[in-house]
Amino acid sequence: MSLPDAFHEIAQRVNNWGRWGAEDELGTLNLITDEVVRAAAACVRSGRRVPLALPLEQDGVQTGMIPGRVNPLHTMVQINQEVFGPGTVACSDDTVVMGLQAATHWDALAHVSHSGRLYNGRPADSVTAHGGAHHGGIDKARHIVSRGVLLDVARARGVPRLDGGHAVTPEDLEAAEELAGTRVRAGDIVLVRTGQMQLCLAGDRHGYGHPSPGLSIRTPEWFHARDVAAVANDTLTFEIFPPEHADLWLPVHALDLVEMGMPQGQNWNLEKLSTACGEEGRSTFLLAATPEPFVGGTGSPVAPVAVL
Amino acid sequence: MSLPDAFHEIAQRVNNWGRWGAEDELGTLNLITDEVVRAAAACVRSGRRVPLALPLEQDGVQTGMIPGRVNPLHTMVQINQEVFGPGTVACSDDTVVMGLQAATHWDALAHVSHSGRLYNGRPADSVTAHGGAHHGGIDKARHIVSRGVLLDVARARGVPRLDGGHAVTPEDLEAAEELAGTRVRAGDIVLVRTGQMQLCLAGDRHGYGHPSPGLSIRTPEWFHARDVAAVANDTLTFEIFPPEHADLWLPVHALDLVEMGMPQGQNWNLEKLSTACGEEGRSTFLLAATPEPFVGGTGSPVAPVAVL
Amino acid sequence: MSLPDAFHEIAQRVNNWGRWGAEDELGTLNLITDEVVRAAAACVRSGRRVPLALPLEQDGVQTGMIPGRVNPLHTMVQINQEVFGPGTVACSDDTVVMGLQAATHWDALAHVSHSGRLYNGRPADSVTAHGGAHHGGIDKARHIVSRGVLLDVARARGVPRLDGGHAVTPEDLEAAEELAGTRVRAGDIVLVRTGQMQLCLAGDRHGYGHPSPGLSIRTPEWFHARDVAAVANDTLTFEIFPPEHADLWLPVHALDLVEMGMPQGQNWNLEKLSTACGEEGRSTFLLAATPEPFVGGTGSPVAPVAVL
Amino acid sequence: MSLPDAFHEIAQRVNNWGRWGAEDELGTLNLITDEVVRAAAACVRSGRRVPLALPLEQDGVQTGMIPGRVNPLHTMVQINQEVFGPGTVACSDDTVVMGLQAATHWDALAHVSHSGRLYNGRPADSVTAHGGAHHGGIDKARHIVSRGVLLDVARARGVPRLDGGHAVTPEDLEAAEELAGTRVRAGDIVLVRTGQMQLCLAGDRHGYGHPSPGLSIRTPEWFHARDVAAVANDTLTFEIFPPEHADLWLPVHALDLVEMGMPQGQNWNLEKLSTACGEEGRSTFLLAATPEPFVGGTGSPVAPVAVL
Repeated sequence: MSLPDAFHEIAQRVNNWGRWGAEDELGTLNLITDEVVRAAAACVRSGRRVPLALPLEQDGVQTGMIPGRVNPLHTMVQINQEVFGPGTVACSDDTVVMGLQAATHWDALAHVSHSGRLYNGRPADSVTAHGGAHHGGIDKARHIVSRGVLLDVARARGVPRLDGGHAVTPEDLEAAEELAGTRVRAGDIVLVRTGQMQLCLAGDRHGYGHPSPGLSIRTPEWFHARDVAAVANDTLTFEIFPPEHADLWLPVHALDLVEMGMPQGQNWNLEKLSTACGEEGRSTFLLAATPEPFVGGTGSPVAPVAVL
Repeated sequence: MSLPDAFHEIAQRVNNWGRWGAEDELGTLNLITDEVVRAAAACVRSGRRVPLALPLEQDGVQTGMIPGRVNPLHTMVQINQEVFGPGTVACSDDTVVMGLQAATHWDALAHVSHSGRLYNGRPADSVTAHGGAHHGGIDKARHIVSRGVLLDVARARGVPRLDGGHAVTPEDLEAAEELAGTRVRAGDIVLVRTGQMQLCLAGDRHGYGHPSPGLSIRTPEWFHARDVAAVANDTLTFEIFPPEHADLWLPVHALDLVEMGMPQGQNWNLEKLSTACGEEGRSTFLLAATPEPFVGGTGSPVAPVAVL
Repeated sequence: MSLPDAFHEIAQRVNNWGRWGAEDELGTLNLITDEVVRAAAACVRSGRRVPLALPLEQDGVQTGMIPGRVNPLHTMVQINQEVFGPGTVACSDDTVVMGLQAATHWDALAHVSHSGRLYNGRPADSVTAHGGAHHGGIDKARHIVSRGVLLDVARARGVPRLDGGHAVTPEDLEAAEELAGTRVRAGDIVLVRTGQMQLCLAGDRHGYGHPSPGLSIRTPEWFHARDVAAVANDTLTFEIFPPEHADLWLPVHALDLVEMGMPQGQNWNLEKLSTACGEEGRSTFLLAATPEPFVGGTGSPVAPVAVL
Repeated sequence: MSLPDAFHEIAQRVNNWGRWGAEDELGTLNLITDEVVRAAAACVRSGRRVPLALPLEQDGVQTGMIPGRVNPLHTMVQINQEVFGPGTVACSDDTVVMGLQAATHWDALAHVSHSGRLYNGRPADSVTAHGGAHHGGIDKARHIVSRGVLLDVARARGVPRLDGGHAVTPEDLEAAEELAGTRVRAGDIVLVRTGQMQLCLAGDRHGYGHPSPGLSIRTPEWFHARDVAAVANDTLTFEIFPPEHADLWLPVHALDLVEMGMPQGQNWNLEKLSTACGEEGRSTFLLAATPEPFVGGTGSPVAPVAVL
């Protein structure tokens, strides 16, 4: 079995291999130029900050559906330990174990491969147990700060949340863009709101994960045309799940990460951002969303903040 | 044994308990108002971004000196796994184990206690194995974005790095402030550069940790007078180590975290920031440094970015 | 609220504090004398070995009902790594994260406390985040090898497995003892089979855990009278769960571990042992069941083997 | 580069592939028959038990020389938690993170490969990040109980410990066998004492690891001739390290694990066993040394007990 022709045709159209040189490991993050960042900072009007990360806790979004992607286990290694003797200042220290993609996170470019290749044509087997992703790991993305644009698809469609079978199309994105009153441009980070996070916040972990609305296989071309730097949304799987085409699993992952070299964000909580943008009558903001630099990581938890 | 009178006298002067209400868990982060953030965004001129985090890797800064504070162990749970069958898109996933204070990090207010109390008078025993810090945990700080000011003490003193016995005093901070050409003000996040990180970057982990230059017991009053929101530096221990006064260990931690309720950052790499600020002739910038929201965490890794 | 008088009356009758000295940390394991071990070895007739541990895997018995008691997460740190250069011998190494009580395990004496006390009157607060159990930790039990006796209560009652509401009583134990054709004696390790493990093996993790048959609050006196060294069974909770008396939770844990100082084993798979004992017409064997010596551990996984 | 002819010649002589069938995953553990176990039980005379495992603790034998092989990190997830309300029985639970080969352990057959093959000709790439060792994992060895024989090479050579450059030869083994007053036979587990453990116990972790006495490349043939079931010793590397022949690293691992299919044990503390055997005038005993059944594990901690 191999990937269908339809996939390869889109792949060819969105492919960015070589665009930023044969050695590039950043992909579309290259589109966040100093100029883009200056404009992003100029977006700030109220100074209001909206955090977009879910709390990191054992009762997190993972249900066991994805083997090995464990919720954060936080344990104490010392509690009010008077390290230097009785009556001295006391310290508490702690430790965490977690899957790098378990919570609100970025996928690194190396998170998926297809046909034996990673982004920019690197061999898939350059991901190894000893060292993880030697190319396209999350540690290559040392800063992600840009203009953020909320495309509130649920609101544009007049529903609190999209239903589980809804594939978000380019038309949906454009309707949301029109509602947003801005035009997505090069270097932007696009946040696509489906409303699916409401299920997670209500405690329905299984319903949150599956079935899930998400991005259609048709969206990578739209993102490519607009030259966005990255895309994140409020679902577990990012793309619609189960997929639009039987036997074509995770095509959006493959197109975004491998072909375009565009990082994806998942499990972002966009509910309060939607409210805040509604209150302030805008959809653009400075977005600070730098991942933790895990060397060789195929992803990283991130605590994104939108500054309105 | 108990803490000396000299400590308690300073404590009384810098104490912020009740200042933001009996229920407050944010401390001086309350000083980062919307107005402060607007001004911070207005600082951005070039759009240049400087990441301040050390890479997260097993060969990290920890040497075993602090029991249980383990360097990140990154392991793979799947590598190019064709989850949905042969020939399909392949996924790589990974997991990390690490001490929350092991690398570039923020100390939460609950990280230390003295005399049985945490910040705002909470009982120290509200930190438990089951749930960690129930008050003043790092998850309370959902966004840390403000104006950053580099106080380059090493440069102000004309040395590449301060020597191991150097306690950074208020006079040092003011000399650096003068060099910076700005005045530290309410809500700022102050980054104090000692140059000690050079030892770490050169591979001398033991020399990096001990003996170390760091903040003097006299600095909390200065930070309190200026109403800064947070302070970070480029050392393992934040304060001078071994301490200035025999048998008075970690007094700066106790004053900053417990009395003032001011978060501290450690192991921040300020070398490239020093260079960049020199090149651009400035010392202020937008600083995005939001911790990961570990529920009950007494600290968190952070990937700070200075936007110049 | 405090423990009821009925509990304290039994506690008084089974209490072993001071029996082996004020410093003792072994409790009833002291009953396994050299003579007992010689007799245990003399039990071996066929040489057949029956392993009693469940496989250690992520799809283990834990369901999240007990917070923080995580199933084993096994990850690779190197895979066929040619450490000394291309073409050399290649190594694979791995790592595990797990709750010490997550799978087939022994409870250490320090696993529970009541009224502020551990076994032998040690203060409960001698269990700390830094170092774990300073008294009565699992590392104190450096060898557990003795005569094992299978008390097959399900078989004695003529059912494949006891139902969820069945509290195993002293009368049940004596009926099973009669079926076994032996008399439980000092230093024995008693394995009590309920058949509940069948639910776990069939994949019903939730049904396995709750409701569960298990030992009655009346059994500690019986074990005390017989001077057994340790008791294990094939359930998640060891004792009947929910408990026999409303508002009296985990009384058997408190009586066995705190009062008697007798280790308890849980999640032991006794199904094949039941069959083997049936085939060989016997119920006694050499049992090798030494825990891993986790310093300060309040429990340990164990891979018990019955040698028939 | 590939392995030298001298290696392949020995490999051919000790190869056991197919000996127990094409599907075999147990290797020489097949030699532990019921009859062998009966004889092992008959060895027990005094009933004295000697534990051979090092304590599992963060201050363990690993120094960082082997990346990712981390010492046990033991953390508490609850401490005296009154799970069912104030005044009820209180529980303490804990968690561990550790390298499976970090402490006293068995190597699984899948721990090494050479020339792309594991034991019994399985492809090396059957070890994967998702599931670990699919063939020859430690979970296949569900019980290891047999006759143990101490070959005390240090004592036989009249030294407290062998020096770092000493390769233990078949002649050394035979001299120790003569001292032991027994003949090693099929199904035995041989414990080879070098005395190197004394360095570890004295706190010299680095000296313990390197340089180290250990088994010579000539020993696999001797073990093969005697049909032993497994071999363990008191060193970090099992075989002499650095190796006898430049550029031939880990040949004993490859011969024992891949060619013979014989498990190896490392970091076994044989000091007290040496004393006990001396006191009792014997060198054989019942050895109970079952690994924990980590599914897909390439090794496992083990708490071996010699019953004299």
